[in-house]
Amino acid sequence: MSYFRHLCSRFSPTNARRRFGYLSSGFSTSSAPPDRYAGLGPTGAHQKPRVVVLGTGWAGCRLMKGLDPAIYDIVCVSPRNHMVFTPLLASTCVGTLEFRSVAEPIARIQPAISREPASFFFLANCTAIDADNHQVKCESVTEGTEKVDPWKFTISYDKLVIALGAQPTTFGIHGVYEHAIFLREVYHAQEIRRKLLLNLMMSDVPGITEEEKKRLLHCVVVGGGPTGVEFSGELSDFIMRDVRQRYSHVKDYIHVTLIEANEILSSFDVRLRQYATKQLTKSGVRLVRGIVKDVEEKRIILNDGTEVPYGLLVWSTGVGPSSIVHSLDLPKSPGGRIGIDEWLRVPTVEDIFAIGDCSGFIESTGKPVLPALAQVAERQGKYLAILLNKIGKANGGRANTAKNVDFGEQFVYKHLGSMATIGSYKALVDLRQSKEAKGLSLAGFISWFIWRSAYLTRVISWRNRFYVAINWATTFVFGRDISRI
Amino acid sequence: MSYFRHLCSRFSPTNARRRFGYLSSGFSTSSAPPDRYAGLGPTGAHQKPRVVVLGTGWAGCRLMKGLDPAIYDIVCVSPRNHMVFTPLLASTCVGTLEFRSVAEPIARIQPAISREPASFFFLANCTAIDADNHQVKCESVTEGTEKVDPWKFTISYDKLVIALGAQPTTFGIHGVYEHAIFLREVYHAQEIRRKLLLNLMMSDVPGITEEEKKRLLHCVVVGGGPTGVEFSGELSDFIMRDVRQRYSHVKDYIHVTLIEANEILSSFDVRLRQYATKQLTKSGVRLVRGIVKDVEEKRIILNDGTEVPYGLLVWSTGVGPSSIVHSLDLPKSPGGRIGIDEWLRVPTVEDIFAIGDCSGFIESTGKPVLPALAQVAERQGKYLAILLNKIGKANGGRANTAKNVDFGEQFVYKHLGSMATIGSYKALVDLRQSKEAKGLSLAGFISWFIWRSAYLTRVISWRNRFYVAINWATTFVFGRDISRI
Repeated sequence: MSYFRHLCSRFSPTNARRRFGYLSSGFSTSSAPPDRYAGLGPTGAHQKPRVVVLGTGWAGCRLMKGLDPAIYDIVCVSPRNHMVFTPLLASTCVGTLEFRSVAEPIARIQPAISREPASFFFLANCTAIDADNHQVKCESVTEGTEKVDPWKFTISYDKLVIALGAQPTTFGIHGVYEHAIFLREVYHAQEIRRKLLLNLMMSDVPGITEEEKKRLLHCVVVGGGPTGVEFSGELSDFIMRDVRQRYSHVKDYIHVTLIEANEILSSFDVRLRQYATKQLTKSGVRLVRGIVKDVEEKRIILNDGTEVPYGLLVWSTGVGPSSIVHSLDLPKSPGGRIGIDEWLRVPTVEDIFAIGDCSGFIESTGKPVLPALAQVAERQGKYLAILLNKIGKANGGRANTAKNVDFGEQFVYKHLGSMATIGSYKALVDLRQSKEAKGLSLAGFISWFIWRSAYLTRVISWRNRFYVAINWATTFVFGRDISRI
Repeated sequence: MSYFRHLCSRFSPTNARRRFGYLSSGFSTSSAPPDRYAGLGPTGAHQKPRVVVLGTGWAGCRLMKGLDPAIYDIVCVSPRNHMVFTPLLASTCVGTLEFRSVAEPIARIQPAISREPASFFFLANCTAIDADNHQVKCESVTEGTEKVDPWKFTISYDKLVIALGAQPTTFGIHGVYEHAIFLREVYHAQEIRRKLLLNLMMSDVPGITEEEKKRLLHCVVVGGGPTGVEFSGELSDFIMRDVRQRYSHVKDYIHVTLIEANEILSSFDVRLRQYATKQLTKSGVRLVRGIVKDVEEKRIILNDGTEVPYGLLVWSTGVGPSSIVHSLDLPKSPGGRIGIDEWLRVPTVEDIFAIGDCSGFIESTGKPVLPALAQVAERQGKYLAILLNKIGKANGGRANTAKNVDFGEQFVYKHLGSMATIGSYKALVDLRQSKEAKGLSLAGFISWFIWRSAYLTRVISWRNRFYVAINWATTFVFGRDISRI
């Protein structure tokens, strides 16, 4: 209960009045019966058990989709009320797809969230977990549009699923957070798009030197994983098809450089890597082997001293554990993720599970930490939904009641292969089960067709499937939209 | 030339170095031959004459669409690289239409802007006009994403068309700019949407009082013109169809109030006004006759002392001359707009025209100042394009050469009628030519169908026609999207 003291000291009635002009103490404790407006207290015998899900990424959303609302009330806490279909995010930066086509509201993924009287979505961040008392501490997100301090509340859980994801790695390089843009959220894609269009227009303003023009229109991507490669490919498509037509004054100044310390697409088959390298080079993407040492406002410095001026810098060098994961007093896997056992449980505590990029098998399981892939997260979410439904049916849904339930089969991950598009209607499909295994790998237009078809069936709702198809068709017919809104 | 001195004093080489790291003096003057990168100097005999268009609203865009790029080079200066299809903007706030469906890039309206070597679009604001020297002074727009001062440059024109539009009227009421949102640009619609969705989610957070919940979900619209009424109608559709389903916990708290000092839709036929009042009331919109005295962060105060708490405040009480129009040393019409004669020329100066909301007939023409309507702006743009093409063909395109050209027929405005949607698949169509005239007026579903069809054929490009139709169809089938991106 130690965090409650800390909480109560910050949350004085004076602050409450200042915030919302009323006097409720604002927090339930497990000893007193919960105030109606003071958070969600422990569930009673007349209620369904409550699953609290932290996060709305692939893992959390797939879990919520699979949970049976007849068995559980579902409470989701996330600063984002939608899931981002990340594999298609790179396409939205240049207008091939619309932003909204790759965002799926949680209420469409699990309608119970908005329909059931005791299921909720809270636009908030989890700030602490009190495993002893089965409670999470949350702070509402206001994003500065309401001039109030964040609103704090606690939620009691019967089962807690941590699906908080990861954060981009910067390797401690100075200036990355200030000057580079990541590519993980819709607002990142919006920022990239706005900056790209601004630079295209700025470079056409009279009085700009040749040198400045070149800088403004130099797009640098750091990180040669699938995200970096797909974004580079989309960008070169945009340049070849749309910039040439819509910004013909500056078309010869725009260039894309992809910087990677090792090899691009290192998880793919060597033949596919070579194909990707050849195709990207052919599309005008300059591939540079290098390590970034420092990022300044208008240029990056490589380890060998090379200075690279840029107008747009996109950073996608993979992900690592986020600060909230670091701060949690839970066992860790190799690499610092939340440690889980074969059933995705956090072993030292009761009723807490962790899935997706924030979790990894603890060493004693003898299993390797799985890669931070949508595929892994999705499979874990699906598995855990089935497991939790099973536990609920066996009367183990309530807090501290699952000890004697048979959990059944362990979670086993089977890699279905990797896909990446590289622009110019070409893609790579690697169907090998691991880096070392042998198996089918494809490159070219057929792969691109498979890639599109596969994503189209995986975009969750029919609405978005329809919109993605429409977006692709209109891009093909009319080109990409260039309004800077 | 007085503004040049002012300019040069601010634009020292030291500043230039700080900005872009080079030394060009940055400005052409009419005496020295223009530097290639220092603005656009006067056109030479080997070039086409240059039409400079200030603004990308209905008037400016319709003009550019009609100008013949074989006769003129077209240079457009505006802080916005697209035109907003304003009649459909209210629908984007609640997700009935996508933002991009109502935005049309200038390069699609007049492709010469990006294809012709001497036609340009500059993302900039006009800050002064030097009519004696046929030059405009501009400042580039950077919007803070590039940490540089705005870049300044001048453009010489052969013909100048001022189509700078108007700005919202606030009647000097304190707090409007700080707390209310206008509904004139795509970013306004985006802000309204984000705030509406934030308030819906905030009101569901545990710990919020009943009173605060009601405030957060009270949407107040000030101004009962077509924009205010259409937005209220869209909002009540959104509440009745989507909020009830997606935000069922708070559905009984959300309300819409429309405040108007006089009568709603005062330019429409009295029968239509009564119909609109009845329909809006039926859809749950509270119509309040009142005058706003003061706007605070969370409530507005009416003249009679009533306090109205709100969570979202949209202000649409019409428009008036903008500050740049005030500052221009040009003749004015009654009401302070730029004065024009029967051929849309600014009479005291050579080669300057003004169209759209920024312009009005001078008193000596004996004509009334036309209403600030898209219809008027569009018609003026169309007329002026034909006139300028005619002047160009008669060898009057170059600066100071149109004195002896026969301008032909005067501009005559014929009102084609007004339309407004009021939600619930109902609209008003008033085909009378003026407020006093008799003529056809329609209300109900048929009007709504006419309204949709009319707008669909008027949305400029085929791409956007297609998208508006698709958006309407998906809203009908799947409901509105609620992702807060």
